[in-house]
Amino acid sequence: MRAGANLQSMERNMQIRLARRPIGEPTVDDFRLVEEAVPVPGAGEVLLQTQWLSLDPYMRGRMSDVRSYVAPVALDAVMVGGTVGKVVASNDPRFAVGDLALGYGGWQQYSVESASALQKLDPNISHPSYALGILGMPGQTAYCALNDIGAPKAGETLVVSAAAGAVGQVAGQLGKIAGCRVIGVAGGAEKCRYVVEELGFDACIDRKSESLDEALARNAPDGVDIYFDNTAGAILEAVMKRLRLGARIPLVGLIEQYNAVQAPKGPNLAPLLVARAKIEGFLVSDHAAHTRAFLADVSGLLQSGKLRYREDVVEGLEAAPAAFIGLLRGANLGKLLVRIA
Amino acid sequence: MRAGANLQSMERNMQIRLARRPIGEPTVDDFRLVEEAVPVPGAGEVLLQTQWLSLDPYMRGRMSDVRSYVAPVALDAVMVGGTVGKVVASNDPRFAVGDLALGYGGWQQYSVESASALQKLDPNISHPSYALGILGMPGQTAYCALNDIGAPKAGETLVVSAAAGAVGQVAGQLGKIAGCRVIGVAGGAEKCRYVVEELGFDACIDRKSESLDEALARNAPDGVDIYFDNTAGAILEAVMKRLRLGARIPLVGLIEQYNAVQAPKGPNLAPLLVARAKIEGFLVSDHAAHTRAFLADVSGLLQSGKLRYREDVVEGLEAAPAAFIGLLRGANLGKLLVRIA
Repeated sequence: MRAGANLQSMERNMQIRLARRPIGEPTVDDFRLVEEAVPVPGAGEVLLQTQWLSLDPYMRGRMSDVRSYVAPVALDAVMVGGTVGKVVASNDPRFAVGDLALGYGGWQQYSVESASALQKLDPNISHPSYALGILGMPGQTAYCALNDIGAPKAGETLVVSAAAGAVGQVAGQLGKIAGCRVIGVAGGAEKCRYVVEELGFDACIDRKSESLDEALARNAPDGVDIYFDNTAGAILEAVMKRLRLGARIPLVGLIEQYNAVQAPKGPNLAPLLVARAKIEGFLVSDHAAHTRAFLADVSGLLQSGKLRYREDVVEGLEAAPAAFIGLLRGANLGKLLVRIA
Repeated sequence: MRAGANLQSMERNMQIRLARRPIGEPTVDDFRLVEEAVPVPGAGEVLLQTQWLSLDPYMRGRMSDVRSYVAPVALDAVMVGGTVGKVVASNDPRFAVGDLALGYGGWQQYSVESASALQKLDPNISHPSYALGILGMPGQTAYCALNDIGAPKAGETLVVSAAAGAVGQVAGQLGKIAGCRVIGVAGGAEKCRYVVEELGFDACIDRKSESLDEALARNAPDGVDIYFDNTAGAILEAVMKRLRLGARIPLVGLIEQYNAVQAPKGPNLAPLLVARAKIEGFLVSDHAAHTRAFLADVSGLLQSGKLRYREDVVEGLEAAPAAFIGLLRGANLGKLLVRIA
């Protein structure tokens, strides 16, 4: 660590800006390194010297000009990112020179931020960088998505993709603590070793050297209760084939398609994440407890004329096959029935 | 309606059996019409003369030999289906000759069923066939899937596919009663007219003559809160592009792919329905209310050594672009950070 910054000695602020929007995988030429004067904080603002910059997959989305949950980075603007910085000048009584703060300073050596957007860190904290990881956004992502959507129960099988990553390693360990059997999916033998030997997952599938279908069948022979999805794509497709009754899939990341030039084939699930929406499978036989309420409500609405209902009736059992074939083509209008006697 | 059946005069039972498993769209040759003796009920059983047979899209799944929520129909077995029948002989005190009962008699003129599997219908019921429709399985599907998963609120926008079908017409009307703006999707002008003029939907998109993307943009300019999905496929893909924050998609049917010979491109959502599972998009910023619990829990687990955590640190801001490109390739092991000062 450098000695405490001295405003007088600071002349330049190195920044990395978005030079152009990447097509597919980003290249270094999509970024531009710029030096400019260190900015001066205004009223209620703080000047921070960046200590730690977090790099996270979501930044790929900000580089593109597509609809998402936040606006993209403008061309020639400084790349965005979470940071831990040391206060070198403060125009707000809540921050003093030397304080450590969690902010959103971006890819640069110095940033000016509104004091009310900063979060002061305990000066005695052992690892300030953890505020950008396990005790920050990635850790909370793992914790909340696993608990609020995954709802793990002891004895269940949890699969975690990008298992060695910032979010995955926390999600899988929290699953173990909740009593789940936890299977990671990661790229490469080194990551898989780390996930099993160091993090204590029950198994880890190397997506670079194993068939996902075969490895899932072997490692999750009774199916998957929770799939903590950081990737979408091929891993999601493989896990979908092994879902157990009532399975939950928190869709947390889409790493496999962040660099995609074209929309993926089939239903693109990205909007589920952007809109924090859900798709949930439904089968009426699970809802027998609601039959009484259904009959009371719908009968009443029918009798009062508030609900209308049309039937499409064919005559005689012999007519059933052709009528059924037509049903699948959408030939009927209203509920299709065969009058037999 | 025929006069009350007379056991003595009944000699043959016409049945429709599964002759072979269809490949793609079923043809009439996949069915076989058979006549056999009218069966005789055993102890606790009832002989019913079928009055009404319900035809429903789920039957296509039973014709195939694939994993689903129930076993397929065996080759040469009678096709399954919900029925309303009149009791013509009873070996159970709960049923008398002449009673009407809802059962699962299948595609045949007479069936023997266990009395405990039958549900007696009110003899004064005005439309016994409604027990197979709006007051039966399709109606309850609409009611429970809309309420339990869709959770409609006044002012929201609801899209219903297969809107003129048995389930869709009820789901959409219940959405109107709940105060939603309701847009149907149906095949053909006649169905769309029915849906709007007779059922009172606000609009109906004719999937046969309109571009789904354009028609959805015009009819749901502010997006879709609930998509009651009876079809999956192209309609789901189009609606996915217009999801509003917190949208809900009850996945109730997959009509578009029931006849498919190959699995659809991209993630096949059929297992969601089979397993009554859910995929839900997650964004950590929605969960700020849980930050305190997260920090307390995860800090404690870290300090006690029950959680492990690894960082992957690169040095200097200049290293950020290459490190970020590597992150998207999965080159890092653990949380990726740039140490700047």
